[in-house]
Amino acid sequence: MDYVTVKYLSKKPKLKNPILIEGLPGIGNVGKLAVEHLIDSINAIKFAELYSKDFPPQVFINTDGTIELVNNEFYYWKAKKKNQRDLILLTGDYQGLSSHGQYELVGTILDIAQDLGVKEMYTLGGYGLGHEIQNPKVLCATTDKHLVKTMKKYGAIFKKNEPGGGIVGASGLLLGLGKLRGFEGICFMGETPGYLVDPKSAKAVLKILMKITNININLVELEKKAKEIEHIAHQLKEMEHGSREKSDELGYIG
Amino acid sequence: MDYVTVKYLSKKPKLKNPILIEGLPGIGNVGKLAVEHLIDSINAIKFAELYSKDFPPQVFINTDGTIELVNNEFYYWKAKKKNQRDLILLTGDYQGLSSHGQYELVGTILDIAQDLGVKEMYTLGGYGLGHEIQNPKVLCATTDKHLVKTMKKYGAIFKKNEPGGGIVGASGLLLGLGKLRGFEGICFMGETPGYLVDPKSAKAVLKILMKITNININLVELEKKAKEIEHIAHQLKEMEHGSREKSDELGYIG
Amino acid sequence: MDYVTVKYLSKKPKLKNPILIEGLPGIGNVGKLAVEHLIDSINAIKFAELYSKDFPPQVFINTDGTIELVNNEFYYWKAKKKNQRDLILLTGDYQGLSSHGQYELVGTILDIAQDLGVKEMYTLGGYGLGHEIQNPKVLCATTDKHLVKTMKKYGAIFKKNEPGGGIVGASGLLLGLGKLRGFEGICFMGETPGYLVDPKSAKAVLKILMKITNININLVELEKKAKEIEHIAHQLKEMEHGSREKSDELGYIG
Amino acid sequence: MDYVTVKYLSKKPKLKNPILIEGLPGIGNVGKLAVEHLIDSINAIKFAELYSKDFPPQVFINTDGTIELVNNEFYYWKAKKKNQRDLILLTGDYQGLSSHGQYELVGTILDIAQDLGVKEMYTLGGYGLGHEIQNPKVLCATTDKHLVKTMKKYGAIFKKNEPGGGIVGASGLLLGLGKLRGFEGICFMGETPGYLVDPKSAKAVLKILMKITNININLVELEKKAKEIEHIAHQLKEMEHGSREKSDELGYIG
Repeated sequence: MDYVTVKYLSKKPKLKNPILIEGLPGIGNVGKLAVEHLIDSINAIKFAELYSKDFPPQVFINTDGTIELVNNEFYYWKAKKKNQRDLILLTGDYQGLSSHGQYELVGTILDIAQDLGVKEMYTLGGYGLGHEIQNPKVLCATTDKHLVKTMKKYGAIFKKNEPGGGIVGASGLLLGLGKLRGFEGICFMGETPGYLVDPKSAKAVLKILMKITNININLVELEKKAKEIEHIAHQLKEMEHGSREKSDELGYIG
Repeated sequence: MDYVTVKYLSKKPKLKNPILIEGLPGIGNVGKLAVEHLIDSINAIKFAELYSKDFPPQVFINTDGTIELVNNEFYYWKAKKKNQRDLILLTGDYQGLSSHGQYELVGTILDIAQDLGVKEMYTLGGYGLGHEIQNPKVLCATTDKHLVKTMKKYGAIFKKNEPGGGIVGASGLLLGLGKLRGFEGICFMGETPGYLVDPKSAKAVLKILMKITNININLVELEKKAKEIEHIAHQLKEMEHGSREKSDELGYIG
Repeated sequence: MDYVTVKYLSKKPKLKNPILIEGLPGIGNVGKLAVEHLIDSINAIKFAELYSKDFPPQVFINTDGTIELVNNEFYYWKAKKKNQRDLILLTGDYQGLSSHGQYELVGTILDIAQDLGVKEMYTLGGYGLGHEIQNPKVLCATTDKHLVKTMKKYGAIFKKNEPGGGIVGASGLLLGLGKLRGFEGICFMGETPGYLVDPKSAKAVLKILMKITNININLVELEKKAKEIEHIAHQLKEMEHGSREKSDELGYIG
Repeated sequence: MDYVTVKYLSKKPKLKNPILIEGLPGIGNVGKLAVEHLIDSINAIKFAELYSKDFPPQVFINTDGTIELVNNEFYYWKAKKKNQRDLILLTGDYQGLSSHGQYELVGTILDIAQDLGVKEMYTLGGYGLGHEIQNPKVLCATTDKHLVKTMKKYGAIFKKNEPGGGIVGASGLLLGLGKLRGFEGICFMGETPGYLVDPKSAKAVLKILMKITNININLVELEKKAKEIEHIAHQLKEMEHGSREKSDELGYIG
């Protein structure tokens, strides 16, 4: 097994000027949630799995009792209308564990993308604020200046010096290494508290993506998940509040 | 020396459709205890040692004052009856220290297994509960759906979403990487508190393995060890209890 | 992508007996500040970028919204007067993250330097004192004994057994690995508290470098930055002092 | 530069059935102290330096202001009498930082030893007790059973199950990997508190080595160092005692 191994499940899909959309685990799992939802919504077809020595030595257990080695997965979708474009979608269980591994993995992903004719990428992630946010905005960064203008039209936000620490991980590296190879790329970062998985932020990201791709994505499922998480967050807050009140009472007694 | 080096102690054993049974160090040392006990019980013969740069740079000292480089060891056993099958047994001092090393080691183990005609594996480990357990059950996961049915007949348990974190380490990876190469594999995880080595859990695992392999394993030694550990656990509990009582007394005095 | 990749932005500059001057991030960012200031002051020209799998998987975001993969950068400057020499200047976002990576990166830097005719290097860094310093001195270490004499003339300080821990990182390794290849090298370490970026220490280092290179460097910008940092340090101290006073007051009250 | 690089300072020494004696940094620096003292005492000649990407990226500064890349060093000494044997001595600044690196380094050391005709090794280290010891004994472990007998005659101690954790690092690995290549090896571990460098323990190790090698080693310098360390240990103890008394006094006052 090489450092990164790609296993095609069928023969390579023939795609016309496809866009790569990446969403791997990260802050608030925003990117992964968005791409997984997109895959489900448009019934994209899995065509390749990617294994790596830089993933943990781990299998997950399916509901039927069988195991699955941790991996990243490629899906494709063919355009249905004239104003749409073919898509390649990337999600997975993990990003690489080490710096070195991240470079190797992203290098391989770019090889595959290049091989399938990709010239343009959208990478999706979360931008952790550390506090709650009612209406998450979507920050943006691009490989090229002309894309900044275009993305502003779609409602993406560019803030000077934000994120101050740049973009760490696959979403950033795909753009960074891709740019060196001549890819155009856009990174969307949904604002998120960053404490829990954040379907609300994923929805905000998908809304911009809908405008760009002219694909109608059913957001009902994501909205349902968002409500569940809101409920959990509310409960956690009450528990915290409750225990604080309790200790206050004890303070009065003592 | 390569990343992983295999040293055959004699010429390769000629085996007929052998099963690989793995038990390396892990939670409660359940897998290692089980396989070591099995090796002793059936007088399996060591035929290969495996060294790796991903093991610690360490030697152990034998009782006679000589040293032994840390390693993994392969044993074989030839079937005595018609309803039995040849076995290859794997145990050792360590699993690989790094993710990358685990993939390398498991890859080499699968190479050896393949070379010796293995198509089926049993990997043994512990499932840490974090609390005491009177009658440890044996959880199971498999590479293929038809094996789930078979294993249920032997008394193995399949619980939805358990272990929630999947299986980490050699026991999981052998199945995960093995599945990609067409091996069939079953992982047995004996429930264990996970605090101490757990012969009771190892016994539970071996009991299922006896039914599957039609080999009669003498469990007396393992039961003796289990009683010793129970005694130690009891003493540790008393010590803890004692010190808590003491501090309670001090509380009353003060 | 190799472990270290060099990307020439134009054809290789033709230089006459050039000196390499290195300043990468480190204690007080002294070296990086000094070299960046030198580059700006003399209008040196960027000619190569160096990427590595041992840098973090990260992009920074430019003020115009575009991204830049983290890297190291090479600049050159051609001598204007007879008593000057051509320069190659090296700075960047990061040093290698791992020991192994540091050796690889420095090895590649030496390859490039050798290829461009470099026989002499100046490496710049900070020497962390852990306390404030009014007039930072510049400690020195060299590859060869005859250079010790020369550097003393320029005002560099040699203290027996200082730095006690030697020089860790690219500034040390360039000299160490360079010496094995026959390079001559000098390391200047500006004394610094080490808490904040330290333009004052960078200025002290540049002042010696000015004498050696016969280049007039405009230090106004650096002095401005030094005042800003002094102001910040002063504020931090007051805040600390204030909170201490406050707790003293509380002490009196209670 | 390869992962490990060997630089011969002169042509390879021609030695007759030489013994390799290793003493690298470790617990109480016992091995390094012993071998360095031996080198000084017999005026052994340095003939090779070993550099590695698994050492820290660091240079040390000599008293004359020049730098030296961290390394390991080989010395040789030719027998003066009929009952003596040629020696190769190995010491250095560091052991490898990673497991992988330790295996690489020890592999290279064995290559060099093999190339120079070594069939027998002595590796020297400390055995950390965690408490003070008046007369440190020297524990022993060997590659072969017949060596156990021989070493007992020289006064080396073999304790069942000690050290319980085996031998970690170069001293153990040289024996472990060496044994696989057919080397005979003996490890001497001087008992030491392990808090400070321990010349007393190094002396105990050298005393046994003197008997085995029939070389008269002047131990005066080592005894002087031992007294200095004893003095420092005494001072540290008094300081600790003093501060404890002080807090007791405060206790009485309060």
